[in-house]
Amino acid sequence: MTPSGIVTLLSDFGLEDPYVGVMKGALLRQAAGLQLVDLSHAIPPQSVLSGAFWLTRVWRNFPSGTVHLAVIDPGVGSARHGIVVVAHEHYFVGPDNGLLSAIHASDPRAQAWVIDRVELALPAPSRTFHGRDLFAPVAARLAAGILESSTVGQPLLQLAPSVLPLPFQRAAEFVGQVMTVDHFGNALTNLSRAHITANSSEIHAGGRSLRLLSTYSEAAVGEAFALFDSFDGLELAVRDGHAARTLALSVGSEVVLRERSGPVTPTQP
Amino acid sequence: MTPSGIVTLLSDFGLEDPYVGVMKGALLRQAAGLQLVDLSHAIPPQSVLSGAFWLTRVWRNFPSGTVHLAVIDPGVGSARHGIVVVAHEHYFVGPDNGLLSAIHASDPRAQAWVIDRVELALPAPSRTFHGRDLFAPVAARLAAGILESSTVGQPLLQLAPSVLPLPFQRAAEFVGQVMTVDHFGNALTNLSRAHITANSSEIHAGGRSLRLLSTYSEAAVGEAFALFDSFDGLELAVRDGHAARTLALSVGSEVVLRERSGPVTPTQP
Amino acid sequence: MTPSGIVTLLSDFGLEDPYVGVMKGALLRQAAGLQLVDLSHAIPPQSVLSGAFWLTRVWRNFPSGTVHLAVIDPGVGSARHGIVVVAHEHYFVGPDNGLLSAIHASDPRAQAWVIDRVELALPAPSRTFHGRDLFAPVAARLAAGILESSTVGQPLLQLAPSVLPLPFQRAAEFVGQVMTVDHFGNALTNLSRAHITANSSEIHAGGRSLRLLSTYSEAAVGEAFALFDSFDGLELAVRDGHAARTLALSVGSEVVLRERSGPVTPTQP
Repeated sequence: MTPSGIVTLLSDFGLEDPYVGVMKGALLRQAAGLQLVDLSHAIPPQSVLSGAFWLTRVWRNFPSGTVHLAVIDPGVGSARHGIVVVAHEHYFVGPDNGLLSAIHASDPRAQAWVIDRVELALPAPSRTFHGRDLFAPVAARLAAGILESSTVGQPLLQLAPSVLPLPFQRAAEFVGQVMTVDHFGNALTNLSRAHITANSSEIHAGGRSLRLLSTYSEAAVGEAFALFDSFDGLELAVRDGHAARTLALSVGSEVVLRERSGPVTPTQP
Repeated sequence: MTPSGIVTLLSDFGLEDPYVGVMKGALLRQAAGLQLVDLSHAIPPQSVLSGAFWLTRVWRNFPSGTVHLAVIDPGVGSARHGIVVVAHEHYFVGPDNGLLSAIHASDPRAQAWVIDRVELALPAPSRTFHGRDLFAPVAARLAAGILESSTVGQPLLQLAPSVLPLPFQRAAEFVGQVMTVDHFGNALTNLSRAHITANSSEIHAGGRSLRLLSTYSEAAVGEAFALFDSFDGLELAVRDGHAARTLALSVGSEVVLRERSGPVTPTQP
Repeated sequence: MTPSGIVTLLSDFGLEDPYVGVMKGALLRQAAGLQLVDLSHAIPPQSVLSGAFWLTRVWRNFPSGTVHLAVIDPGVGSARHGIVVVAHEHYFVGPDNGLLSAIHASDPRAQAWVIDRVELALPAPSRTFHGRDLFAPVAARLAAGILESSTVGQPLLQLAPSVLPLPFQRAAEFVGQVMTVDHFGNALTNLSRAHITANSSEIHAGGRSLRLLSTYSEAAVGEAFALFDSFDGLELAVRDGHAARTLALSVGSEVVLRERSGPVTPTQP
């Protein structure tokens, strides 16, 4: 795989302090010409779930050979490993705490390695900031094409369990969950286009039945509705409003699909 | 016009979620070597006015041939067009909802085109994220010099009406408005140096008459005053304080210029 | 010194408005190929102390020859000078208001110059935004290797006094202070590894005696403790909690070291 020269960064560091900046310094000390792209640094502190959710969605918007450096790492300094995952022709670098497990599981040809060659870290690495002292130096060298993923350490066959809940069948219902609430108040879920039977699923959340529309401007102002977001996930929104507040939704809230009891409207071919 | 290779980004996406990052991924998938610069992603949600205001001010700080990608787009998925504007030897890409109209109107030689060649969008574009699926691919190719603005589609002679209010004469007063309140609490207005008669205009806002000073450090601590900001606009500030709170100003508040009734102080040559 | 081509940016501008973006525009107008890295733009407004604290810590994470552009500048437009400091084989550009004094003092071979060649500024510079009109053009040309630091103006031997408080001895105690509270609620101090006698110092803050641990995961959940942060400074933290709230700490709060009265535990060689 040819690296794209791009490194994306995802963390719970926030942007108030220079932690992201120093991690970029560590990247550039290895390879000054990298293209660095922030995904988000406002992942809720220690929310491995939120980070994992976004990683499964965003990689496909980057060229193949991109390195995704993901640091939501409450166990830094403990025995948890640092790992490199290669999946979907992208690289992922971060802690083995469930953050990268769903990505790994989503590609049957994915491979993973433990980062166990100590010379890959900065000299005298800290015990509290592996993002800077270990993951960034590895990510930069992968992105610059001066390190092969298979040489960082031992192959890893079993990653830490994924932290992402999966939707499930419960009697006649199919039950998904809100995974995050975005800046606009839209509730993003673990349900996707594949879970919805065209024209025959009723969508229930926050005590209401919601219409499935194609875009925001089809809704009435103030209407709560569902649509497929730009990642093909099922999203709950309120036209010109804040869905999570209107529907009293937060991370973990249930979103239920029920088969329509009445006759099914035929779809156009 | 030779592209500068720089793309600026302006949106109301916020930085909590990876939406800006994925838009950058879409840019880099077209041209990996672009220089990407964030202007702001904290435009109040759907505030086309605020985005339009900043666009008219910031382009001149970039090299000519820079592409400004602006996505404040409440009508995404509706019939509103995507457009390319060339004005002041800069490119502007975004929705035709008033966001780019003031820029277009400010240059008598400006040109605009509707983006109507479907092959310019990503395959299977979403109906909710044209920033990623249409505007970014167009902006990237303009910035990389692999697309001519005149080939994106039909010329557009009449853009959507500008959303920016203009200052106006009301009896003996000249009336401007607060356009935005910045991070420091300064109130930025649609009045500029050209509207102020040297030494003969009184400036009224928030029920007070304000001195016109040259810089913050000329004011007394706690004093509310006016000055020309770094874009030659009239700004209302409080030394070491928060002008919008002190003067009870918000977007739309009036700022009134009156001719001084007394004798005019002669200016130094 | 060979420039690295990297410019870091530190300011109190916030990210709501495009001020940082236009400063980057001013950098790129001088040299389009620079690598720009944000350190933080959320320094509390006018907090020269906070900016100076971070600058002393972060430069070493970048390649030598990096230019650090620091704009916390409440006196902009007054008589305070703009300066260039060369220290530790890095460049620092900003106002002479104490922001760069600690960095200058930390390297016995450091040099400084007043920026007094008017042609280094943009034409018709504003009196309110020297970050864009003076510091950025200088920083960009230093980073691009087209300007020598020694040619910006007169050498400066005495900088403005440093704003960073130093820890001090008070009877049998050694007294440091909280310098900032980070995104995670950790309290960062002006005490460092060199101030701690291994195994013989007791650490007191917020009315408690705190254990000195090696990493977050060694603490009990909810425990307040001390550790060396990734810059070798003494940090006060709460496992899975917010130390500043738990210990009622803010900038300026005392952190006291006392010699242990009991027998000293021998350290391993």
